[in-house]
Amino acid sequence: MDDLRHGLHQDAEDVSASYDPRKKQMRVEIWSDIACPWCYVGKARFEKALAAFPHRDAVEVVHRSFELDPDRPKGDTAAVIPMLAQKYGMTEAQAKDAERRLGDNAAAEGLAYRTEGRDHGNTFDMHRLLHFAAERGGRERQDELIGLLYRANFAEERSVFDDTERLVALAADAGLDPEAARAVLDDPTAYADAVRADEREAAELGANGVPFFVLDRKYGVSGAQPAEVFTQALEQAWGARPPLTVIGADGPESADGPESDGAACGPDGCEIPRA
Amino acid sequence: MDDLRHGLHQDAEDVSASYDPRKKQMRVEIWSDIACPWCYVGKARFEKALAAFPHRDAVEVVHRSFELDPDRPKGDTAAVIPMLAQKYGMTEAQAKDAERRLGDNAAAEGLAYRTEGRDHGNTFDMHRLLHFAAERGGRERQDELIGLLYRANFAEERSVFDDTERLVALAADAGLDPEAARAVLDDPTAYADAVRADEREAAELGANGVPFFVLDRKYGVSGAQPAEVFTQALEQAWGARPPLTVIGADGPESADGPESDGAACGPDGCEIPRA
Repeated sequence: MDDLRHGLHQDAEDVSASYDPRKKQMRVEIWSDIACPWCYVGKARFEKALAAFPHRDAVEVVHRSFELDPDRPKGDTAAVIPMLAQKYGMTEAQAKDAERRLGDNAAAEGLAYRTEGRDHGNTFDMHRLLHFAAERGGRERQDELIGLLYRANFAEERSVFDDTERLVALAADAGLDPEAARAVLDDPTAYADAVRADEREAAELGANGVPFFVLDRKYGVSGAQPAEVFTQALEQAWGARPPLTVIGADGPESADGPESDGAACGPDGCEIPRA
Repeated sequence: MDDLRHGLHQDAEDVSASYDPRKKQMRVEIWSDIACPWCYVGKARFEKALAAFPHRDAVEVVHRSFELDPDRPKGDTAAVIPMLAQKYGMTEAQAKDAERRLGDNAAAEGLAYRTEGRDHGNTFDMHRLLHFAAERGGRERQDELIGLLYRANFAEERSVFDDTERLVALAADAGLDPEAARAVLDDPTAYADAVRADEREAAELGANGVPFFVLDRKYGVSGAQPAEVFTQALEQAWGARPPLTVIGADGPESADGPESDGAACGPDGCEIPRA
């Protein structure tokens, strides 16, 4: 986690002011890419489960970065349908059918989806901006921004790739300061480490695709699973949340061992070793 | 974790350069206070277990802040023996005996311990400095600094409390830039949020005393347990480390459900919905 909070963060105190981790008893991290349609669909399925989860207010949702194509150069933006046809050896008609079926999956979750005319490209700047959003505005601003980025990419005609003005406008729509957002986008090093750190962590956790959901670092859910699977995961992780499994307490070691076993200091003082 | 990396961090890239989380498969967080003798003893017991642990090179150790007396004003430094006598309703002779027995526990771990003449006071600046050490120099510098702070407090005559020059010298001994350390100590807001965030997390995790050891956020060990308990905890946490428990994979839902169950995108493309 060392790299996570680098970059511009002059207003970091604003985050801590609005964020009280004591209220959040569980954490769900979602690795995703803006260019990933199953992330768009999977987020809605997860949110359906979360909305019905009795402890939803105690769940913190954190968006983490994952580029499907990290080596794709900035500026290399292309139409989706021909790319699909070439990548999967399909005709363009078959690629259009595949996009329509993806659109059906999106529609089933109440999501708009343009099945023709979409493009795809480098998403690094969007991920940097999402880290900025979390740091400046907290998790709620980040969540709002990722929703706007998805909608811009999957449901709106204007391209979201390689268009600083577009990203600045979306950041402003998410409630962020547009000039600060522009400064982040203009500095390619801003939050770059944070994006790379997220990607390293995804690899460490065994994620080789997205969406990838991690609950309290204990449970993982891979892919756009049905809402029921997310419900099951939330319930399972809730049942397993802290207090931690305590090792060495009340065991035979501490019952029979020397008086110093497990000795500690607290606000009222330190355990006094017996004579 | 939002507050953890605030403060001065111009050289943050140096940390990421020396830190490769892929090499570290397990993380042990140790909440402690420099004024806590059982933390001094417990750290040595933990380290004995870690030194014998076959996967020790894959274990990252992180020191986290916990002030036993966060409301104690800076500058309020007093001798330990009379404080003990007053706090526990003992004679000073009994308090000296208690300190001698603590010294015996320390000696059993090979640690020097001044059983008379110690003082105690506010440790906030030391905790801020430890966060600075981690950010500027990585976990190794932090570990070295906490060792030097413990030794200064428990084994050396000169007080470590409320003495900026002393702390600057210890930071330099730990391999940190003394002028940067002085700048941190001179700015009471530097890393203050990081200390408070650690303390909030300790409360969330149920720690009401220190030392408190947390392994991969799954297992907790409270107090200066014998090394065997730490060995058991390391083994148990190692066996439970990632890969995560995956929910919803290969279950009946994905075998029999619609083709979109668990659909995902990866470096080679997205799952194509079947017709």
